[in-house]
Amino acid sequence: MKDKLKVIKIGGEIIDNERKLNEALKDFAAVKGKKILIHGGGKLASKLSHKMGIEPQMHEGRRLTNQHDLEIVTMVYAGLINKKIVAKLQSLTCNALGLSGADANAILSEKRAVHKIDYGLVGDVVKVNYEVVNLLLKHGITPVFCAITHDNKGQLLNTNADTVASEVAIAMCSLFETELIYCFERKGVLYDLDNPDSVIPQINSENYKGLLKKGIINDGMLPKLKKGFDAIEHKVSKVIIGNAGVINNNKEELFTCLTL
Amino acid sequence: MKDKLKVIKIGGEIIDNERKLNEALKDFAAVKGKKILIHGGGKLASKLSHKMGIEPQMHEGRRLTNQHDLEIVTMVYAGLINKKIVAKLQSLTCNALGLSGADANAILSEKRAVHKIDYGLVGDVVKVNYEVVNLLLKHGITPVFCAITHDNKGQLLNTNADTVASEVAIAMCSLFETELIYCFERKGVLYDLDNPDSVIPQINSENYKGLLKKGIINDGMLPKLKKGFDAIEHKVSKVIIGNAGVINNNKEELFTCLTL
Repeated sequence: MKDKLKVIKIGGEIIDNERKLNEALKDFAAVKGKKILIHGGGKLASKLSHKMGIEPQMHEGRRLTNQHDLEIVTMVYAGLINKKIVAKLQSLTCNALGLSGADANAILSEKRAVHKIDYGLVGDVVKVNYEVVNLLLKHGITPVFCAITHDNKGQLLNTNADTVASEVAIAMCSLFETELIYCFERKGVLYDLDNPDSVIPQINSENYKGLLKKGIINDGMLPKLKKGFDAIEHKVSKVIIGNAGVINNNKEELFTCLTL
Repeated sequence: MKDKLKVIKIGGEIIDNERKLNEALKDFAAVKGKKILIHGGGKLASKLSHKMGIEPQMHEGRRLTNQHDLEIVTMVYAGLINKKIVAKLQSLTCNALGLSGADANAILSEKRAVHKIDYGLVGDVVKVNYEVVNLLLKHGITPVFCAITHDNKGQLLNTNADTVASEVAIAMCSLFETELIYCFERKGVLYDLDNPDSVIPQINSENYKGLLKKGIINDGMLPKLKKGFDAIEHKVSKVIIGNAGVINNNKEELFTCLTL
């Protein structure tokens, strides 16, 4: 039987709010067994852009990334947030090591082709180097990924953190029984955005289509759900979407579970 | 007999000048055998501070680091510069992995005690975790360190990059025959700053005192020389100070060599 692995992604307000981040990291540090953390960038990159007088450009919740934006997200995601998280985890006796996809060639991507939209320096994941991730895990080191990848030609690329989490989870399935957990500020996928407790407990690929048709799934949730179903379809044993309470032993009663 | 290891520090204009950086990284990638890169921050952190309307505070060539400065240097050193270097090295088929001292608890430091000067969030190296550095080297991974360390209580600390290089070289001596190479914009330690070719070819601990007394060693060189002699006194087999030409097979005829 394969060893178990949890791939946990934290994002949204958890990154922006110091208290919430500390709680989430405490819960993450307490997770027993092998684990990987993937973090988003919260609003810090946009804030820094504002400070420097540059307005970030978005399309359907995704950042369009020019050279200047790439420098900002590399600073904020791979530098400030990643190292802050790693230092906090170390103080919680979790032997964390922060990585971008360029480090040890862990996540190779390619620049997204230009069709209707030119996303700029945005990368789509091509390959996760599961051997090097496993090398770290095997030696008691917990990888902490930011969502910056590279094309192996010297170019860093901005990548969606939900995608990175899903791709890492999928790649690790060859070695582990892998669970993917998406944590953000809500308790799960909601029937009604105005009611924080209206959590849809289970979504399968069938009723997903129905929910989409009825317009119940809001735009911001689409990438997470798409990538969640991707993971389920590629042998990830369990995908959970919820708030930070789901990180360790499902303290929360409410969360969304994706099934085939 | 111990295996050989080169610890190479690049700093100053090499970091700021894209062409010089590319050349230095090409030379570094071509170095045969086990190697570690340590990089300084150049002038980018100060530039970013300026952009955000904050003037960096210095004392004897060392940055005084408040919370805001720490965030800036973490972004610039551990984020922008480190990941840019790692991505470039990957494209040169050097399997680089970028690290701060917090990552895998690689470099533990303590906040510098306040005597006459309060340096703020500046760390003095306490311990280099040579086992984890060796784990990477053993698997063909080349560590690339920025000069941010941590105190294992969750606090990142700004650390002098020359010091990091020296301390890493000293720690690795228990496993390797270690050579330390400091690269910057000059050809070595100069008799006369106005004459770029007036390189002092060899400095030992004796004539060092004489050079200091005569005021020949300028302020900016003091930390590098102090740390260089530290390394020599702690079993580092060779310390070289020169420009990027010394990285690979001493292409340069002129450089400074420190001896006991």
